[in-house]
Amino acid sequence: MAATGREFFTVKTVSEALSGFRPAHVTPVETVALDGVCGRVPAGDLRAREALPGFDRSSVDGYAVRAADTYGASESIPGYLRLVGAVQMGTAAMEEVASGAAVAIPTGGMLPAGADAVVMIEHTAEATADAIEVTRPVAPGENVVRFDEDVAAGAAIASRGRPLRAQDVALLAAAGVVDVAVHKRPRVTILATGDEVVPPNTAGLSPGQVRDALSVSVGALVLEAGGEPSPPRIVPDEDGALREALATRIGVSDVVVICAGSSVGMRDQTAGAVAALPNSETWCHGLAIKPGKPTLLAQSNGVPIIGLPGNPRSALVVFRLIGMPVVRRVGGWTVEPLVGTIHAKLARDLPSAAGRLDVVQVRLDLDEDLAEPLFGSSALLSVLTRADGYVIVPEDANGLSAGEPVEVFPYG
Amino acid sequence: MAATGREFFTVKTVSEALSGFRPAHVTPVETVALDGVCGRVPAGDLRAREALPGFDRSSVDGYAVRAADTYGASESIPGYLRLVGAVQMGTAAMEEVASGAAVAIPTGGMLPAGADAVVMIEHTAEATADAIEVTRPVAPGENVVRFDEDVAAGAAIASRGRPLRAQDVALLAAAGVVDVAVHKRPRVTILATGDEVVPPNTAGLSPGQVRDALSVSVGALVLEAGGEPSPPRIVPDEDGALREALATRIGVSDVVVICAGSSVGMRDQTAGAVAALPNSETWCHGLAIKPGKPTLLAQSNGVPIIGLPGNPRSALVVFRLIGMPVVRRVGGWTVEPLVGTIHAKLARDLPSAAGRLDVVQVRLDLDEDLAEPLFGSSALLSVLTRADGYVIVPEDANGLSAGEPVEVFPYG
Repeated sequence: MAATGREFFTVKTVSEALSGFRPAHVTPVETVALDGVCGRVPAGDLRAREALPGFDRSSVDGYAVRAADTYGASESIPGYLRLVGAVQMGTAAMEEVASGAAVAIPTGGMLPAGADAVVMIEHTAEATADAIEVTRPVAPGENVVRFDEDVAAGAAIASRGRPLRAQDVALLAAAGVVDVAVHKRPRVTILATGDEVVPPNTAGLSPGQVRDALSVSVGALVLEAGGEPSPPRIVPDEDGALREALATRIGVSDVVVICAGSSVGMRDQTAGAVAALPNSETWCHGLAIKPGKPTLLAQSNGVPIIGLPGNPRSALVVFRLIGMPVVRRVGGWTVEPLVGTIHAKLARDLPSAAGRLDVVQVRLDLDEDLAEPLFGSSALLSVLTRADGYVIVPEDANGLSAGEPVEVFPYG
Repeated sequence: MAATGREFFTVKTVSEALSGFRPAHVTPVETVALDGVCGRVPAGDLRAREALPGFDRSSVDGYAVRAADTYGASESIPGYLRLVGAVQMGTAAMEEVASGAAVAIPTGGMLPAGADAVVMIEHTAEATADAIEVTRPVAPGENVVRFDEDVAAGAAIASRGRPLRAQDVALLAAAGVVDVAVHKRPRVTILATGDEVVPPNTAGLSPGQVRDALSVSVGALVLEAGGEPSPPRIVPDEDGALREALATRIGVSDVVVICAGSSVGMRDQTAGAVAALPNSETWCHGLAIKPGKPTLLAQSNGVPIIGLPGNPRSALVVFRLIGMPVVRRVGGWTVEPLVGTIHAKLARDLPSAAGRLDVVQVRLDLDEDLAEPLFGSSALLSVLTRADGYVIVPEDANGLSAGEPVEVFPYG
């Protein structure tokens, strides 16, 4: 344990890290078929080549009419219209709707020539085999989706940098955009460091050994952020091993995560290994966050390197707050995800030091709208697994009091 | 268009559907490796076979000591301790800590015999090559994670029916649970019906034709709910085609979704085709929801069948509210997901009829905390793609007024 390891030299706040740590690397572009694009990030704006809908359509089941023919119709004095045909789905209407005529039309059917509105079937009755009663008037355009009302030809239907949602995929399908240029998923190398760390499938542990809890769980968060985690790699503490692993992986990775590479014991090794990379820069070594202070943020040739604390709980907290946004940006996101919270009242006081962001795990009592803070060493994973979500005590707060309203970020 | 199609005979509310539509089918169990279990649903409680940690560990970088030796130490009058060794990671400590002695220990290191606490390195200084100064006292147990403090041997570390999160995966890895019995992903058959419907990759449309927007977008929501969508199938309106498709797919599916099978035009066909299935029951035909009223919920041999409205926007709204919970339950979920919302003020009045649940698409102005409702025909997909989220006007409300606080469910 070197004496130089006693201080954190370049501590930054979480908001400084989120706004200021911006390595330039972004993944290249690939073309993906429509059934795989939900959640993917378009590399450019996506446009409809043609108008949607491509013809005037009925938005209800009913009868295509001339609106003027229905004026004055009511339950007590219905209007009568001649039934001259029925629209078949998927084809142009055969009949024209002349004055006093009606054509049966299903939802989505193409409006026949002459008609300018559709009377809902609920506001009609069959009078005879070839006539209907209309019990409510319609205005011109009523129950009709006009040509190009949904999307004009050439209009943008999805924006670059914003991940596609189910409804975006629907609109792309409707517009016939079936191959989409999106950013590749970031390849994220996860290096677990430490002579004590053994693979999770190790049956019997020797004294002092622990199983690698982080590679697979950080990998799960990488997947959630749209990245692809590499297979786990455990790097021994011996001199040069981390340096070699980093040198090998940096060129084939879009993000590199070093688990436990930032504790006092590993700090000089990690700093040295990062400094040995081409065009490297250490952006911060130490974050004003609890838990998670021993976090390193660096880059090499614009590829982000994230050194996580040694405690699994701290590491997962930091990766969720700092690492996932980094993975998203490398994957082409230019917006922040919209994150909902659950509003609750704090069940007890939360002490906190100003100048530091605290991430407090809580259990929710939804019946009482209470958030119950869970305490315990940052080495305890069980505090995280018992939690329903977390509360953030911001940098400028001196703790929060019992009964105060808080926003809980749910784990889902 | 048959006369019998004019009414919805068995309309239920959304809350009735969520609580009352409970087909019995649940997917069988499979064993999945740890790197694939995040988001999957354990079929039984998962237990740690051994205690975690398996030995007393330091939670900080520092020195293992006897706490009593540090009492009274301060910045001005530090205590002095003999440095008798250093803990190597991954092995049992060699040295015993006698009174007046200290052993250097990194985060996660195994506490040496004789020691009962760890002084953080920040509260020490090197006095000589073989002695340290201690500037702050520690209590017994301080900065130590005790044997089994995280998890006792045999304790449950994840519950059946609740999907695994990243931290659960971490704890399973730490406990050496690398093969997990989870429910299989529900296989969801999606049938698009209608003579007007053509595959999304159709280049030129004939008059009256539309591309299938729903199969791929409902498929995206199926994936989000943990299911596996089948390849899209377009079923023509001709008699018997839907019946045949249902009969073929029901036995190899965990959920069946019929797109546009519930409009007036298709209703009798769908009802007949469902009724022809073995042990079938139609639970409701019509939901008190806007948009989305023409929704059918049925089952055959306990396998849910969901008939979605013909308008893509209505269909996506209904599938999100009703379909995704159905897929989750079939996939073994026994809890509801915790869903956060964004609190905002309504930018304008929202009319609504009591007795009906309204799903209103909104754009968010986060600077002003405003939710701006988006209006337009339920046939318009662009209303959904322009939205940042939606607001629910509950069944018992007669609309909401401008300025009222609302909870927005963000699309992410």
